[in-house]
Amino acid sequence: MTAAFDDWMKTVQAGSENDLSGFLPAATATPTKLHEAMRYALLGGGKRVRPLLAYAAGALFDADAAIVARAAAAVEMIHAYSLVHDDMPCMDDDALRRGKPTVHIAYDEATALLVGDALQSQAFVVLAEADINIIPPARLAAMFKVLAHASGSAGMCGGQAIDLDSVGLSLSLAQLEQMHQLKTGALLRAAVVLGALAGKDLNAAEMAALDKYSRAIGLAFQVVDDVLDATADSATLGKTAGKDAADNKPTYVSILGLEPSRALAETLRLEAHAALAPFGDKALRLRELADLIVQRKA
Amino acid sequence: MTAAFDDWMKTVQAGSENDLSGFLPAATATPTKLHEAMRYALLGGGKRVRPLLAYAAGALFDADAAIVARAAAAVEMIHAYSLVHDDMPCMDDDALRRGKPTVHIAYDEATALLVGDALQSQAFVVLAEADINIIPPARLAAMFKVLAHASGSAGMCGGQAIDLDSVGLSLSLAQLEQMHQLKTGALLRAAVVLGALAGKDLNAAEMAALDKYSRAIGLAFQVVDDVLDATADSATLGKTAGKDAADNKPTYVSILGLEPSRALAETLRLEAHAALAPFGDKALRLRELADLIVQRKA
Repeated sequence: MTAAFDDWMKTVQAGSENDLSGFLPAATATPTKLHEAMRYALLGGGKRVRPLLAYAAGALFDADAAIVARAAAAVEMIHAYSLVHDDMPCMDDDALRRGKPTVHIAYDEATALLVGDALQSQAFVVLAEADINIIPPARLAAMFKVLAHASGSAGMCGGQAIDLDSVGLSLSLAQLEQMHQLKTGALLRAAVVLGALAGKDLNAAEMAALDKYSRAIGLAFQVVDDVLDATADSATLGKTAGKDAADNKPTYVSILGLEPSRALAETLRLEAHAALAPFGDKALRLRELADLIVQRKA
Repeated sequence: MTAAFDDWMKTVQAGSENDLSGFLPAATATPTKLHEAMRYALLGGGKRVRPLLAYAAGALFDADAAIVARAAAAVEMIHAYSLVHDDMPCMDDDALRRGKPTVHIAYDEATALLVGDALQSQAFVVLAEADINIIPPARLAAMFKVLAHASGSAGMCGGQAIDLDSVGLSLSLAQLEQMHQLKTGALLRAAVVLGALAGKDLNAAEMAALDKYSRAIGLAFQVVDDVLDATADSATLGKTAGKDAADNKPTYVSILGLEPSRALAETLRLEAHAALAPFGDKALRLRELADLIVQRKA
């Protein structure tokens, strides 16, 4: 990672934190407990991978900053809501997230349920309030379509359902890949595509290149997650390590082994770079993000 | 109720059932358990009040049937998801809904959580896939904005949060009204406004009239719900009767008493009629729906 990339990343992360706060109702607005808990779930933590991807993809086409900010925040709200619901007792039953008590621990289960529901709605509010004098409404409608599909049963929720159904089963590599492409890949792709759509309508070749890049980083993200779950400690991760093995969940490490998983992540990093070739220098940040996703330690 | 109204209602209900089924992924599509459970939650029951309102409001401006169908289905999916989550053990913990086991009973809690999440996404998918050769994308963006606001913390989720926080408290009539205007009123208004927007852009006077109508029927709906909860039996209601009193929840009946609650519902019915005066004969179905909401027995 270069110092310039590091500076860019910190700038986007700080800007996203600020945008996310601005796009949420105030904690003093009724119902205050729900709004406080939404802020607790969304603010003050996280690597902001999805906003980083949205901004990096926006840079491909010099997208308007106000529209990229909405794209980034909308995707991050969907991600944050999914974490709140996934952590609940009826799902993964996890007490720790980003080094803090999860929402149902810090508040209660009913509040956690509502926080997730309301954050999903808020993601669509954030897109819906984009200024259609800046972004053509037909393009905004395309952004809605991408986000809604990525969130639902053909995307993130569908992946989570497959994940639940596969506990204790022995999955093939292809089945594991399908599950992760839905569970995490769909939303990472949405971050990339929404960021790019903030800049211009995408032609078929551009969409195909972004899809190829998204597929590669989506899988790499999960492979590296599995490697870290098997090798890092809870304090570094900010969440309970070794949980997948304890829950008897299929992972890349359990199917392929540790070293082959690391090699796969590196292959996917190179695939991501190759997919970006048509965009030239404008894709610098997207290339660096692929490196970050594969080389991260937490 | 006239025979013509009854025929219209049955036609819309049957059409909505058909549309809702068509707007859901097939039960045979992966993940099949999630898709089956989404169908279980959404199809085969319910009074379809929100689709009826959307179609009746669409009739004000001769809206395109394909767009009204999407407006109606999107609002009904938000409603259905909220019922699935509200019934869960950490919320109302109810085992019976529309005479059938609730989703977390028929399936399991994790599935119920995902069904709600995915139905909310699907509502936005249904709007997003509207044909922008039929509806101008700027008007579609306005529909997104109305639905997202009505669903989130400034709408339905916010009302549910206030409801949770008010168990065991003694609410004033104004506080009870605010809670219900968010919890049920916001989505009933969305049904009306989305149906109307399917027909044309709304000017300020039209929006004000529809708001006034929506406010009146929204409150009437809840007042009548409270009256029925206090007077009808579970078999008639298709859900557990007397539950509000058992849960020590504030209701119109507990604050005002039974007969004053009935009188309030009648006053609201007349207010709803008055609000529709500017629309003349085109508002026939909206008037009849106000009557239905107040005079229903379940």
